[in-house]
Amino acid sequence: MGKRNLTLMTDLYELTMMQGYYRNQNQNRLAVFDMFYRTNPFGGGYAIMAGLEQVIDYIRNLHFDAEDIDYLRETGHFSADFLTFLRDFRFTGSIHAVPEGFLIFPQEPIVKVTASILEAQILEPALLNMINHQSLIATKASRVCFAAGGDDVVEFGLRRAQGPDAGVYGARAAMIGGCAATSNLMTGKLFGVPVWGTHAHSWIMSFPDEYSAFRSFAELYPECCILLVDTYDTLKSGVPNAIRVFREMRDAGTPLVKYGIRLDSGDLAYLSKEARKMFNEAGFHDAIITASNDLDETLITSLKSQGAAINSWGVGTHMITAKDNPSLGGVYKLAAIMGDDGQMRPVIKISENTDKVTNPGDKKIIRIYDEDHMIRADLICLTDEPCSGKEDLKLFDPTEPWKKMTLPAGHYTIRELMQPIFVDGECVYQTPSVMEIRKACIQELNSLWEGTRRLYRPHPMFVDLSKKLYDLKMELLYRGAGK
Amino acid sequence: MGKRNLTLMTDLYELTMMQGYYRNQNQNRLAVFDMFYRTNPFGGGYAIMAGLEQVIDYIRNLHFDAEDIDYLRETGHFSADFLTFLRDFRFTGSIHAVPEGFLIFPQEPIVKVTASILEAQILEPALLNMINHQSLIATKASRVCFAAGGDDVVEFGLRRAQGPDAGVYGARAAMIGGCAATSNLMTGKLFGVPVWGTHAHSWIMSFPDEYSAFRSFAELYPECCILLVDTYDTLKSGVPNAIRVFREMRDAGTPLVKYGIRLDSGDLAYLSKEARKMFNEAGFHDAIITASNDLDETLITSLKSQGAAINSWGVGTHMITAKDNPSLGGVYKLAAIMGDDGQMRPVIKISENTDKVTNPGDKKIIRIYDEDHMIRADLICLTDEPCSGKEDLKLFDPTEPWKKMTLPAGHYTIRELMQPIFVDGECVYQTPSVMEIRKACIQELNSLWEGTRRLYRPHPMFVDLSKKLYDLKMELLYRGAGK
Repeated sequence: MGKRNLTLMTDLYELTMMQGYYRNQNQNRLAVFDMFYRTNPFGGGYAIMAGLEQVIDYIRNLHFDAEDIDYLRETGHFSADFLTFLRDFRFTGSIHAVPEGFLIFPQEPIVKVTASILEAQILEPALLNMINHQSLIATKASRVCFAAGGDDVVEFGLRRAQGPDAGVYGARAAMIGGCAATSNLMTGKLFGVPVWGTHAHSWIMSFPDEYSAFRSFAELYPECCILLVDTYDTLKSGVPNAIRVFREMRDAGTPLVKYGIRLDSGDLAYLSKEARKMFNEAGFHDAIITASNDLDETLITSLKSQGAAINSWGVGTHMITAKDNPSLGGVYKLAAIMGDDGQMRPVIKISENTDKVTNPGDKKIIRIYDEDHMIRADLICLTDEPCSGKEDLKLFDPTEPWKKMTLPAGHYTIRELMQPIFVDGECVYQTPSVMEIRKACIQELNSLWEGTRRLYRPHPMFVDLSKKLYDLKMELLYRGAGK
Repeated sequence: MGKRNLTLMTDLYELTMMQGYYRNQNQNRLAVFDMFYRTNPFGGGYAIMAGLEQVIDYIRNLHFDAEDIDYLRETGHFSADFLTFLRDFRFTGSIHAVPEGFLIFPQEPIVKVTASILEAQILEPALLNMINHQSLIATKASRVCFAAGGDDVVEFGLRRAQGPDAGVYGARAAMIGGCAATSNLMTGKLFGVPVWGTHAHSWIMSFPDEYSAFRSFAELYPECCILLVDTYDTLKSGVPNAIRVFREMRDAGTPLVKYGIRLDSGDLAYLSKEARKMFNEAGFHDAIITASNDLDETLITSLKSQGAAINSWGVGTHMITAKDNPSLGGVYKLAAIMGDDGQMRPVIKISENTDKVTNPGDKKIIRIYDEDHMIRADLICLTDEPCSGKEDLKLFDPTEPWKKMTLPAGHYTIRELMQPIFVDGECVYQTPSVMEIRKACIQELNSLWEGTRRLYRPHPMFVDLSKKLYDLKMELLYRGAGK
């Protein structure tokens, strides 16, 4: 699915603006755009970066083919010279981004595009689309996995996802966020991640009775035999029939490695505890009890607090659609543009809504870790500011600037978050495998304070501005910024 | 984007079940599966069918290529004979479905697959994925358009959609639901729908001042000149600069056909009324005032009730993600299967949750219209039941069966909703264009009673069971259905 030409997957206004820059002979005017988001999703304390690999594929394949040009001509909005120009259009700029699997926080740039304004403009919708989507699902998955404690969480949501890509790339993102496996074969094939599955109610219903259906499944798949027990009556029919089949397997000497049941309806806490008792009485102490049915992090937490005897969770709709918060809301804003004098000029968007005011200039993010490698704060600074990690570091809150602290030299370490991805149109970044990204993500989550990891009303992470950036922002705000 | 091989976009368990049917020599056992949904989305009174064209493309292209087979082999779950069998696998069954753009209601089958159980099983995830997604977005769009009254609604959501397909096919669905246009060029190219756009804040910020940016845009696009006025200060800077540019155009004799402003932040009701006054005072009575910024049907209704002077609406995140209800929850359930005697046997899924009990048997839906061509009820019956529309028709509520009514012959008309789409593997259906589907949808919405069209707490549509189907369902329920 990765080799599609998505060049026209953009908004008409990007193309009309591009033609405008072209006609005004501004097509080579250098610009810096930031992607960032404004609020953590799900009322949580963080988000997880994901989707960069698909952005890289998209940009590498960015070109207008003859069909695209014909279509644009038909719209009547574009002149012949501009359409000719588009024929050889390629992305020749530079991109920095936070690698996938890393934690990200509000207001900080997570992707920075440095390119001619014309080239930077066309990327906006696709770049936002892919990173907004996958970062959202990775974040949701990390919350579901957190609620599940050490239990496996399996992504199940393809049928409820918002279209094919949402199913396939959503499952990719869910793996990054910590899922143990997905049911989606396409995601397994494309990204080499584990794929799991059992059977559906239709399997049971296609047999004359439940026991025959279970027995047949056990004969076919003795090595991984999870039986769906709620087609007729979970405790009166499903669990007893499953136990009967497992007894037969045991009696026949078939090794019972990965076996158990799936609950898909009813009171999952009650049914799992009753089923566990029945399995224990029959001597099947290590039977897996997996549950599904509109699960999310809240319901899993609640079931666990009631002592549900479930040790594997199949999560569909709520995770694959991020149901309680189905968009991340990342934006792409101009931060600097070359003036007629060839100098880069920082710019700001003021707006009626205070939270829509942007941070001006060409920036970088420094992540500051304390001596236990826990994240202390992120610092947004201008790219040309020195930050060696060797000096005392003064931090202050950009909305409440009287709140200050100093980290003494030697008691903190730093990491520059955004890495070079494209340099002058060439991709210089090797995307790790999804399972490697997943591992990095787990490590990152371990450097988050418990209070910030909390699912609800977490303690917010500090995202500070450097003094130089803060002063620049205030100057542009008071000046009324180029009005 | 339509020519992808999505065959592996399915759940592992479909393939393991398929292998099970194959090994048990049940691969040719005929089955009937229904897709239906259980609850109307958004607390509304209906949904709109959409996504069928993509399902047709998917099924036509359904085959395992060599790469797919190699991947399946690597998983270790599949035997060599089954993998050889998959090499020539094609869909050879039959499908009936409600055409796109038609109203659909809970519990009624909207797609019916009649095929060998092996073939029917693999379709489940992709079919549900595409129809759940597009039907959801079409329904949401119809609600937004209803709130907007006669005003144009433009779909703007690509950057917030859950991946590329969600953007492109979501925009297709939004058009079916009544949008006037989309910003998405790919959707325009693929489906021949109108594409609209203006410019972004970055256009304004790339110029030394707002007036120069507006003037340049007006010179480039005088025929459609909608200026974004909130970059610095809407009423003190944006609107006065827009009026200055429109005055210059008028003075220069440039025809002002489609011109005006876009508001993207602040109090949209207040700002639009103030802007309208300023335009009227300057003699620009027909200036368009378009608004965007997290709009949905509730906010549009509220803004209109406050007399907002907005006559065009750009709707993004809330519509493209169906934010308040981001999944339709359609399911795919076995309704009948051939017994060893070659006879079709109706089946039922009982489940712990009453609302998960299914309707058994091979069914059809009859839509009943009254003399004013308003929808009176939908009737689910068995396929072999006669229903000519020429006799007195007795209806009763399946959950409250003592509630009855009789429609006298000659005072109602009927339409059978599901149409043949595939017959014995051949597609027999010609998909109408998106703009034709959109037109049919508007007509269908006009046959919905006002009370059912209402956005919140609507009067529910009657979806009744025929006496014969009701009796069959009760028989299977009381029998405990094949336990």
